[in-house]
Amino acid sequence: MIQTITGTVDFIESLRGKDADFLLALSNSDTAQIEGITQAGIPGAIHLTPTLDSEFVCTGCVRSLPGVATTPSGVPTPALVTRGVHTLRPFKNIELLNLGLQKLPDVTFFNIRDFGLDPSGSIADGAAIEAMEVFEKGVEFGQNYEPAGEYVILAESVPSGTTTALATALGLGYEATECFSSSFAKNPASIKAGVIDSALANIDSSDDLFARVGTVADNMLIFNAGFVLGANNRGFRTLLAGGTQMAAVLLLVNSVLRQMRGSINSSKIALATTPWIANDQNSDIKALLGMLDFDINSYYATFSFAKSKSDALRLYEKGEAKEGVGAGAALIHGYLNGLDEAAIIQRVESFLA
Amino acid sequence: MIQTITGTVDFIESLRGKDADFLLALSNSDTAQIEGITQAGIPGAIHLTPTLDSEFVCTGCVRSLPGVATTPSGVPTPALVTRGVHTLRPFKNIELLNLGLQKLPDVTFFNIRDFGLDPSGSIADGAAIEAMEVFEKGVEFGQNYEPAGEYVILAESVPSGTTTALATALGLGYEATECFSSSFAKNPASIKAGVIDSALANIDSSDDLFARVGTVADNMLIFNAGFVLGANNRGFRTLLAGGTQMAAVLLLVNSVLRQMRGSINSSKIALATTPWIANDQNSDIKALLGMLDFDINSYYATFSFAKSKSDALRLYEKGEAKEGVGAGAALIHGYLNGLDEAAIIQRVESFLA
Repeated sequence: MIQTITGTVDFIESLRGKDADFLLALSNSDTAQIEGITQAGIPGAIHLTPTLDSEFVCTGCVRSLPGVATTPSGVPTPALVTRGVHTLRPFKNIELLNLGLQKLPDVTFFNIRDFGLDPSGSIADGAAIEAMEVFEKGVEFGQNYEPAGEYVILAESVPSGTTTALATALGLGYEATECFSSSFAKNPASIKAGVIDSALANIDSSDDLFARVGTVADNMLIFNAGFVLGANNRGFRTLLAGGTQMAAVLLLVNSVLRQMRGSINSSKIALATTPWIANDQNSDIKALLGMLDFDINSYYATFSFAKSKSDALRLYEKGEAKEGVGAGAALIHGYLNGLDEAAIIQRVESFLA
Repeated sequence: MIQTITGTVDFIESLRGKDADFLLALSNSDTAQIEGITQAGIPGAIHLTPTLDSEFVCTGCVRSLPGVATTPSGVPTPALVTRGVHTLRPFKNIELLNLGLQKLPDVTFFNIRDFGLDPSGSIADGAAIEAMEVFEKGVEFGQNYEPAGEYVILAESVPSGTTTALATALGLGYEATECFSSSFAKNPASIKAGVIDSALANIDSSDDLFARVGTVADNMLIFNAGFVLGANNRGFRTLLAGGTQMAAVLLLVNSVLRQMRGSINSSKIALATTPWIANDQNSDIKALLGMLDFDINSYYATFSFAKSKSDALRLYEKGEAKEGVGAGAALIHGYLNGLDEAAIIQRVESFLA
């Protein structure tokens, strides 16, 4: 079932039976190299997570390293959920957005869009992102992207992305400390808090909006905020596929609009996430969305691996992994097209056999 | 599951969720009248096989003769598989290509493209095909066909087609004797060998490429080779749907390119076939594709009727029938759109009830 977090069910119901493009925003931030900051990936090869995730969604294989990316506690990447749905109710088109990858995905026949971006720096030392430029690239892409389907799912794979998202929200002045998620079951609060403190200390009080996010954000957050604004007058609607990171994208959109004294047609966008985010005790996506000056529809798919035969998949129910690679939006896309939980579990299990 | 024969999985994975046109190249060759040469059809009415196959794929009925075409041992035509997938995950458009039918399919509302071609002669006596003209018609069609979907499946139904395909490969100088399939479980080697010998004896050593294939091929092989070359600069990709016959189409493409000193963008084409061809002990599709001067992606769908309740369908697992009417590509199209083996078996069985 599809549950409403904010708004009404109508936005998402009106997408039933429509074809979706799946855009996967991929980026590396040196923030992920900080010991203990993230478990989104294989220790020592965390920077490969977006590369491996995108290879797996596209082809069903991981090529740049043997074996599917798992967390240290053995939770397989949410890319398995996305791939599972794609094999059962395919997306109309997949586009990989290279927003500063250390290693390109090893795929042919799939479009890897190059935006000329490098991985961003660690926010502990200042991310050093040319934020205005990244934002404008997002705007331009949103203004010009021609979807093959009728709506667009904009997803992400960015290790340490919840840390940069929280730093971004705080750097923009939102009181969001208690609202942010993590790929850990137990949010590594002390490590994260130290990094966030360092990050915020790098902001000069005279810094403007883009100087701030250039210091504490990541390329994905800034680019996707640009995309949302650039696509706002287009004929398609966009589903921001993620949890607190996508909420931070919307907070950045909100701040840009405040500064421009602009407005957005928020009926063109919604947020779609997983039950593990929507029901997370350690984060509060609803509160984050409540900080926006505009109303927004947001949803999650009810789904549980509790009945899975796989020990690794059942770890999701303990709060590991939670979201990423558009898993929540993929579940919703599946439900909008007649899939049920059992079929998705069975398909995901087949990948681990 | 989709298995790779040659190349990588990327070509076919990138077609997931895309709509397909199903083009069915239909032709008669008097070669099929040679006693014992083929079992692709009803004894005494073998020439009706492409007519009946196309009626069944389009409408679910056979009209030009009562009852579904079966082999003498009772194996139903692979058109059942194609029809089964089409009823579950429909093709966007079906086009029937009349490349010299003795009897037109009895269908309305479906497009039967007329290319002004007559059935070709028996290769035992010289097929007497105006090969250059047929080839040019294929090129022109490939250059101009406007697909309704995003990729094109090019399939065939041509009784005695594996015999003319082998003669074509040999006539073009490929050492392919051991590589070719047959609709029989036991390849009727002695009859076939005699016909092939007669066919090759009709080639004059001074004959050019088109004179050779005009003597030993069939209209489908020549037309489809033209289509592949004509469509090579178009915006869509083509899946050659068949086994050793479609490999022979590619060998002809290869010979044309050698003579023209031309090249092909082989990323625009792939071959898709059945497991009964891919795993056939009496033919070697991989070896045939290895004779090409260009690389090509090729695939088969894992599928088995072993669990079918139908005795007739289980005969497929004994090597009867094997491929035709795009059955292998249809299975792949189904798998690319979320179908599984059980659903396809159940649907095909329903046609026989």
